[in-house]
Amino acid sequence: MFDDLAPEVLEAAGKVKAVIFDVDGVLTDGRIILDNTQGENKNEYKAFHVRDGHGIKMLVREGIRVALITGRSSAVVKRRAAELGIDESDIYQGSKKKIEAYEKVKKQFNVIDDEVAFVGDDIVDLPVMIRVGFPVAVADAWEELFRHAKYRTRARAGRGAVREITDLILKAKGRLDAIIETYTQD
Amino acid sequence: MFDDLAPEVLEAAGKVKAVIFDVDGVLTDGRIILDNTQGENKNEYKAFHVRDGHGIKMLVREGIRVALITGRSSAVVKRRAAELGIDESDIYQGSKKKIEAYEKVKKQFNVIDDEVAFVGDDIVDLPVMIRVGFPVAVADAWEELFRHAKYRTRARAGRGAVREITDLILKAKGRLDAIIETYTQD
Amino acid sequence: MFDDLAPEVLEAAGKVKAVIFDVDGVLTDGRIILDNTQGENKNEYKAFHVRDGHGIKMLVREGIRVALITGRSSAVVKRRAAELGIDESDIYQGSKKKIEAYEKVKKQFNVIDDEVAFVGDDIVDLPVMIRVGFPVAVADAWEELFRHAKYRTRARAGRGAVREITDLILKAKGRLDAIIETYTQD
Amino acid sequence: MFDDLAPEVLEAAGKVKAVIFDVDGVLTDGRIILDNTQGENKNEYKAFHVRDGHGIKMLVREGIRVALITGRSSAVVKRRAAELGIDESDIYQGSKKKIEAYEKVKKQFNVIDDEVAFVGDDIVDLPVMIRVGFPVAVADAWEELFRHAKYRTRARAGRGAVREITDLILKAKGRLDAIIETYTQD
Repeated sequence: MFDDLAPEVLEAAGKVKAVIFDVDGVLTDGRIILDNTQGENKNEYKAFHVRDGHGIKMLVREGIRVALITGRSSAVVKRRAAELGIDESDIYQGSKKKIEAYEKVKKQFNVIDDEVAFVGDDIVDLPVMIRVGFPVAVADAWEELFRHAKYRTRARAGRGAVREITDLILKAKGRLDAIIETYTQD
Repeated sequence: MFDDLAPEVLEAAGKVKAVIFDVDGVLTDGRIILDNTQGENKNEYKAFHVRDGHGIKMLVREGIRVALITGRSSAVVKRRAAELGIDESDIYQGSKKKIEAYEKVKKQFNVIDDEVAFVGDDIVDLPVMIRVGFPVAVADAWEELFRHAKYRTRARAGRGAVREITDLILKAKGRLDAIIETYTQD
Repeated sequence: MFDDLAPEVLEAAGKVKAVIFDVDGVLTDGRIILDNTQGENKNEYKAFHVRDGHGIKMLVREGIRVALITGRSSAVVKRRAAELGIDESDIYQGSKKKIEAYEKVKKQFNVIDDEVAFVGDDIVDLPVMIRVGFPVAVADAWEELFRHAKYRTRARAGRGAVREITDLILKAKGRLDAIIETYTQD
Repeated sequence: MFDDLAPEVLEAAGKVKAVIFDVDGVLTDGRIILDNTQGENKNEYKAFHVRDGHGIKMLVREGIRVALITGRSSAVVKRRAAELGIDESDIYQGSKKKIEAYEKVKKQFNVIDDEVAFVGDDIVDLPVMIRVGFPVAVADAWEELFRHAKYRTRARAGRGAVREITDLILKAKGRLDAIIETYTQD
């Protein structure tokens, strides 16, 4: 895995101490699933990927900080974050200007731009992407985003893109093979 | 983006003052998701795409009018429209003859045929498509529709087709690059 | 559309007076969507395709009879059938031996084997497929089924396979172009 | 079907007396579908495939034992298992170390490593995969898994991968053709 990574990608990924994920179109395939419910009882559905989730858990266990910044707002994101070990205080929902949430994340995690990876899929992610040290666009992102990304995932969002990034960061930090070994040795 | 557009597409898109979207098969990938609920309490689910939604919001902000015309009828469409800034009075549900809704939209928006784009996917969309100045068929539309479309999206419905059209219209109006710049400059 | 159909397909389709569809894997893409509900209140979700639905409605309007035979049983099928104009008495759910339901359909519709099309996706459909005059397998059916089908759809189940068949039958009966004309002429 | 199988695959599959499936990413396409519900009333949705289900039922009818081992926990798995004829005592949910559940399955079914097939998709499945006689990785599994699998399905998880394995095992045991015949002969 990742035997053909460009040196500048490995270098940027190796410095990462915190990863910020957008939600819709990054942790999901972009589908906003709604139903007929309205008002206070309105429900919203999101489809996350099981292997993305395991990747995030592995990051957290290795001491890498994880935050979510999203323009929408729903309880389902909080629910998924709890499953993955992401602190409720590290979820920024209803974020109209993502750069503001980004500044809070940096302060909260005590990191500098170069130590942050951001994974995005759309134009609203640009302000943060041009700031962080390791900007990533998912394979099926909005086309213009690729100009501003250091890495474009091979996997599509909601179909393994997030896991590809968590594996890549662990690989760049020299941790991936050791983790695999814990699963293959008695 | 859109560097290879045919001049007649750019011209038609440049005149657009109002965009009408079909819902199922255009704003969604065509899936009608039902469950066991019946009667007054029956629920219906639709999967919209996050980046399509952002594209519609950008259109609305630029002063382009947006309407929805659909043969089905469910509260979930009203709910999504509200999120996108589409007026409730510009949603035409349960529309058996779409041409009748189309006439109302034209009057409401005070536009002529040449200033309207319509995005469709099926035979029932033909009467409106042969009238508007900029008829669009989604990539995976019913085959015969392509004969009557000035543009066929590269992206499939529910997977970015709508965003492709909103970007294309903003591009044709010379607005897209300026909008992108607001996201990449401090 | 259908300009390259084999003569034997056109001939078989031209004789059709009744069409029987399997549900899961034919009217849907095969996904059985369940949730945590149990017992009497258990819910089940199915994703039908909007253009498949319109195809079935066009068949019904042309006087072709439509029935559903499925091994599973849920209220959601009844709900979709009602939308499409399929009589409740022509839905056979919980059908363990499909050949028994098939015999009832033939009697109900007063048709002979040669006048029936059956669209299936799996081994349990074989007994009916080897009986009817126009046996069809969806593009992504269980592999062995193709040996027993007179036609394999190009579209996958839940993504237009049903519409392809309804269009094909209307084409074989010389009705498709006339129907299209009603939508393109004022 | 399976005319080009490697002899070592046929041999391993022919010895199988028990099959263990992971759930998310094997019986499903990996989507964890959540909604806004929280706490005791929280709901979870999974999309199983109809033909996978029929394959498992055919295995069970042939006397092959089937178990499920999954790291997550939800009532929806129990519900699907009941439909397929899998005993509730053979479902291991919330299994953090799958090897522990595996040992219980072996004892329960009275089988040895060589008589067990395991179908997995991720790193957490490695400890069991390196133990069983017939380790299988789904087509879209986590890349490193393929090194430890005797067979990689052509079909993706949730889109027929499970049915491919159940068919393959019945084929290796010389039972598949006989089963097909029961459906094609009067």
